[in-house]
Amino acid sequence: MAEATLTISSKNYSSWSLRGWLLCRMAGLDFTEEMVDTSDATARQELLLLSPTVLVPRLIHGRVQVWDTLAIAQYLNEIFPGAGLYPEDIAARSHCRSISGEMHSGFYNLRSALPMNLKARHQSFKIFSGARPDVERIKLIWNECLDAYGGPFLFGENPSVADAMYAPVCTRFRTYAVQLDDRLEAYVDTILDWAPMKEWTEGALAEPDEIVELEVEF
Amino acid sequence: MAEATLTISSKNYSSWSLRGWLLCRMAGLDFTEEMVDTSDATARQELLLLSPTVLVPRLIHGRVQVWDTLAIAQYLNEIFPGAGLYPEDIAARSHCRSISGEMHSGFYNLRSALPMNLKARHQSFKIFSGARPDVERIKLIWNECLDAYGGPFLFGENPSVADAMYAPVCTRFRTYAVQLDDRLEAYVDTILDWAPMKEWTEGALAEPDEIVELEVEF
Repeated sequence: MAEATLTISSKNYSSWSLRGWLLCRMAGLDFTEEMVDTSDATARQELLLLSPTVLVPRLIHGRVQVWDTLAIAQYLNEIFPGAGLYPEDIAARSHCRSISGEMHSGFYNLRSALPMNLKARHQSFKIFSGARPDVERIKLIWNECLDAYGGPFLFGENPSVADAMYAPVCTRFRTYAVQLDDRLEAYVDTILDWAPMKEWTEGALAEPDEIVELEVEF
Repeated sequence: MAEATLTISSKNYSSWSLRGWLLCRMAGLDFTEEMVDTSDATARQELLLLSPTVLVPRLIHGRVQVWDTLAIAQYLNEIFPGAGLYPEDIAARSHCRSISGEMHSGFYNLRSALPMNLKARHQSFKIFSGARPDVERIKLIWNECLDAYGGPFLFGENPSVADAMYAPVCTRFRTYAVQLDDRLEAYVDTILDWAPMKEWTEGALAEPDEIVELEVEF
């Protein structure tokens, strides 16, 4: 198979990078990581404003270039049909895509108010009221999935695209000490203990602290 | 095939509804339209803040429920593989998904500053400076597609998911008199003259004016 390169930015701050990277690991793609220069204006915008950019994540695989997290998911699902990125049943698969799409296009307030920051822990963080409906909606989405498919992942025994899409939210709930019931805490634990997530987190914790300077600009 | 219902909101204002509806028409799905009650708080939020909701567009097809525009596109592509929703070549298909994803998760300033309003014409509209980079990015995306695939649609002879995703932008560029060169004006004409787009526009123009009251709340 052709060589693959995935361009990402900060492992501590970039939630879009995390999603794209998890998808590549789940698919079993053999890829090289390339870190985008965080002094690049567009890359900084992604980190500071939490808006997606065409720079990260971006996958180059032979003659195929694909950017945008969901486009990467679709591409990987095509070339690794046996990797189980989406549930097998068409109704569950459509459900998985629907909630993945919600995360992709929405939750703007949550993303602004609770930026991903794996190194940080805020025990008495006051959640901006505008972000609270987002938190409630996410709890409902997770509960509906755990009810329907039995956990421990959102669509049952194995991780799917939806878990990759919501993984940054799991880290945010831990970073900002968002209160959850036992079942949802267990789901967050499942994600944070998931092997590729642990691998990413180690990389984030090892990241040079100079990038943390970005934080003061929020 | 099972009965299908697509829930949408205003044909004049709801850009997400337009995209989902175009995708269903392109796929050749036989569906019933259901208009969401625009007095519903969540539906109003979609119309006023231009944020997607789980209410529209939503497709119910037999036992499958799918919301979110890109999830609907993926579902329709699975059940109508011959409809050509995505380009045949995998590199072009990945390109199509990448720019569709960009529209889905980004261009927040453009969507806020130039809301879809098919009935309106503003000849000397001053574009908020924050939205100008979005306009420039869209011009670049369109030019790259027209260069690579030869038009008249973004991926060549036939419309694809990307044309449905950018169709509301075509109407906005006309509504707010955004200046384009001849080639991009011709692309906008192609979309506005496309049969399903004309059908939708007729519906928008026939929509009762009471919904226009929403506009003053921007």
